[in-house]
Amino acid sequence: MAEKVVIIGGTAAGLSAASKAKRVDPSLEITVFEKSGYISYGACGLPYFVGDMIKEPNDLVSLSVDQMTRKRGVPTFIHHEVTGIDRAAKTVTVKNLDTGDVFTQGYDKLVIATGARPIVPDIPGAKAEGVYTLRTVEDGIRLKGVVQCHAQKKAAIIGGGFIGIEVAEEMTNSGVEVHLFEMMPRLLPFLDESFSQTVLDTLTAHGVHVHLNAGVEELLTKDGRVCGVRASNGEETPVDYALMSIGVVPASDLARDAGLTLGIKGAIVVDDEMRTGDPCIWACGDCVQMKNRITGGAVYVPLGTTANKQGRIAGGNLAGEHETFKGVLGSMVTKAFDLYISATGLSLTQAKAAGYDAASSVITKGDRASYYPGSRDNTICLILDKKTGRLLGAQAIGSESVAGRINVFATAITCGMTVGEINELDLVYAPPVAPVYDPILIAASQAMKKVEG
Amino acid sequence: MAEKVVIIGGTAAGLSAASKAKRVDPSLEITVFEKSGYISYGACGLPYFVGDMIKEPNDLVSLSVDQMTRKRGVPTFIHHEVTGIDRAAKTVTVKNLDTGDVFTQGYDKLVIATGARPIVPDIPGAKAEGVYTLRTVEDGIRLKGVVQCHAQKKAAIIGGGFIGIEVAEEMTNSGVEVHLFEMMPRLLPFLDESFSQTVLDTLTAHGVHVHLNAGVEELLTKDGRVCGVRASNGEETPVDYALMSIGVVPASDLARDAGLTLGIKGAIVVDDEMRTGDPCIWACGDCVQMKNRITGGAVYVPLGTTANKQGRIAGGNLAGEHETFKGVLGSMVTKAFDLYISATGLSLTQAKAAGYDAASSVITKGDRASYYPGSRDNTICLILDKKTGRLLGAQAIGSESVAGRINVFATAITCGMTVGEINELDLVYAPPVAPVYDPILIAASQAMKKVEG
Repeated sequence: MAEKVVIIGGTAAGLSAASKAKRVDPSLEITVFEKSGYISYGACGLPYFVGDMIKEPNDLVSLSVDQMTRKRGVPTFIHHEVTGIDRAAKTVTVKNLDTGDVFTQGYDKLVIATGARPIVPDIPGAKAEGVYTLRTVEDGIRLKGVVQCHAQKKAAIIGGGFIGIEVAEEMTNSGVEVHLFEMMPRLLPFLDESFSQTVLDTLTAHGVHVHLNAGVEELLTKDGRVCGVRASNGEETPVDYALMSIGVVPASDLARDAGLTLGIKGAIVVDDEMRTGDPCIWACGDCVQMKNRITGGAVYVPLGTTANKQGRIAGGNLAGEHETFKGVLGSMVTKAFDLYISATGLSLTQAKAAGYDAASSVITKGDRASYYPGSRDNTICLILDKKTGRLLGAQAIGSESVAGRINVFATAITCGMTVGEINELDLVYAPPVAPVYDPILIAASQAMKKVEG
Repeated sequence: MAEKVVIIGGTAAGLSAASKAKRVDPSLEITVFEKSGYISYGACGLPYFVGDMIKEPNDLVSLSVDQMTRKRGVPTFIHHEVTGIDRAAKTVTVKNLDTGDVFTQGYDKLVIATGARPIVPDIPGAKAEGVYTLRTVEDGIRLKGVVQCHAQKKAAIIGGGFIGIEVAEEMTNSGVEVHLFEMMPRLLPFLDESFSQTVLDTLTAHGVHVHLNAGVEELLTKDGRVCGVRASNGEETPVDYALMSIGVVPASDLARDAGLTLGIKGAIVVDDEMRTGDPCIWACGDCVQMKNRITGGAVYVPLGTTANKQGRIAGGNLAGEHETFKGVLGSMVTKAFDLYISATGLSLTQAKAAGYDAASSVITKGDRASYYPGSRDNTICLILDKKTGRLLGAQAIGSESVAGRINVFATAITCGMTVGEINELDLVYAPPVAPVYDPILIAASQAMKKVEG
């Protein structure tokens, strides 16, 4: 008899798992339940949907329910929330959110890919009208409605992380007066301090009002609607609406209630094959704890790239493979107007916390031959182990080309390269594309001076 | 008494050697002799100087004679040709090309950084007026004169390599009708065959007349001036002038006459510390033979990046260091109008010739999230060892971002990574910059299917 597989969650991790499992073992009877009204959407595209760079919700979607169900042979249901897992009976309880019907479905193997949910702090006004989050397509539609209607002109973004910064750009470009509130004394504090200043300067130059040292303590309301923000520094700023972008936590309630082990921030603990403590249950994506690829330590770094990879691995393994997930470096890139920000590996603080005798080194270099028109600076910070010279982390800001350079450093970190070895890399050069000494080489050469002994 | 160092050649390799040696041992008395009228120029920028993207010859120059002489303490002489090396007496004979004076200069240590010179084939008309080469700044000034005067409208470029293609773009953009002659049946034949077609289509679409299977057998002349080209396929094409861009050979006559060992194509043989068979003589840059970093075999791949690195190493070593040059991958990038072309490592043909049971695999993938506006394709060809899955080479064409991706592959090749390991890299992602599955990962994933066993 065919094995029954249930997958909870129909975005990156869940659908990667479903598709991979079905490819490896077409006999599997796989069913996907997704709570929201959309599957397979690129959540990372939501800021650009809100800013109308991307027009329609369906533009964010790469696979339809019909494609999954008919073409891939994986029956997929939206507006179906799994409300409980009975590990002894090997069943899940499912609620059809459209009809209210509740039913039970048996499984031989289960995949939990429930993702993450935005943190909404427990402060006065947090539940008022006019408070938005941005995680699902529905969230995006709601926020886009208010941003693009042009009736409400002034918005607070609470939390100056990537999403906050990306939405700040898109809202500003849409004509909104944006106030970005960050609790910390600088933006993106895992970056080198000089980088935070550049990000701040860029946002300010483009008209974003950045409030630092400004944890939001209260959302002021009038008639149940947000009308302002009171920050920890005492400032009160009148706004028409507010976006909560403080961060996310793993959506691991189902797993917790089923007695599975949770780790950092409540993320589900899995082994390298993405299996939970229950041999019939795998978990993947933004709901699981992962391993830092450098330190081997447990971390929670929810990113779309990781979710896709883990989904594939979980799906392949439940179908009989034995692939392992190697861990994360936390490689990322984002843009703030014309400034690109990218990083991989450990920050200096993280490296020291992990026990390394670490140092950092910063250089700035044009991304084309100096004599070729249009060269733009890359500023690169390398974090290294002073004893061995091994690269532990890299951060870069500047032109779009920082992304490719951080990928080189990510590769180098993965291979355990020292900055001396990076300095010997044979990289490409042509005046319109890169200088003869690539910023990568200049960064490595400079960092070599920090190596002791 | 201070040691005397003579450096023959004042561009990338020679000046890198001079500057590095002086930094390591300021007591050295270093003299640089450069035959041409310019030092420290970016030869790779010459096509863009010809096309007037770069206005003045001095824009190509990063260090002046005065800076070298006064600031760096390295007396540097232009228009000074070294005409002979007496290894027994440890002297060089120098001719001042401005005055005609000839003198002898002693050395304790000598660096040969004489570079390469353009191949001018021994065909009728090759020495006629209106035949150009493009290697020195003086060459560039001459060619720019005829290109930008707009009186002569039709030009032949003989040789469809990088320089030929780069100049074809610049001349076309300057209003010249360009006929590009390539002896081989396709352009850039070390690239995957489909890539050659894309390059051809791009050049043709931008108005370049590409003649394939068209080795030039004669330059037709009238009154001692070029007036046309006769190709091996019998075609005769009237032109007003012609650029020879067939390639370069090492400028190793001095070394040969001094009895030093020459290798491939007449390039000077050096050890890993850039020293020739004579313990007092180092050589570096486009005049030396190098080692392929993958196969360990001898190759001749003259590139500016290599010249700079080798110069530094030679300079450091003659001053007492013991650094080694690790070899080349032949990493390169160029552009043909809006098409970027980049490669590293072995081509499929080279890999097979080196004894690998090699295969290649080609994919095409957008360089941004599919839903984000402005995504452009990257087409990537990976060359791998079928037995081990080890990456041996990579080629990419498409948007400018191919350069960063080839640098990742160059790093991976250097570390001996397999395509399976590359597929597990944690790379950056954001909709405006890269898709969630980067083209690098898609290429690696596809190439994994070619791995046997």
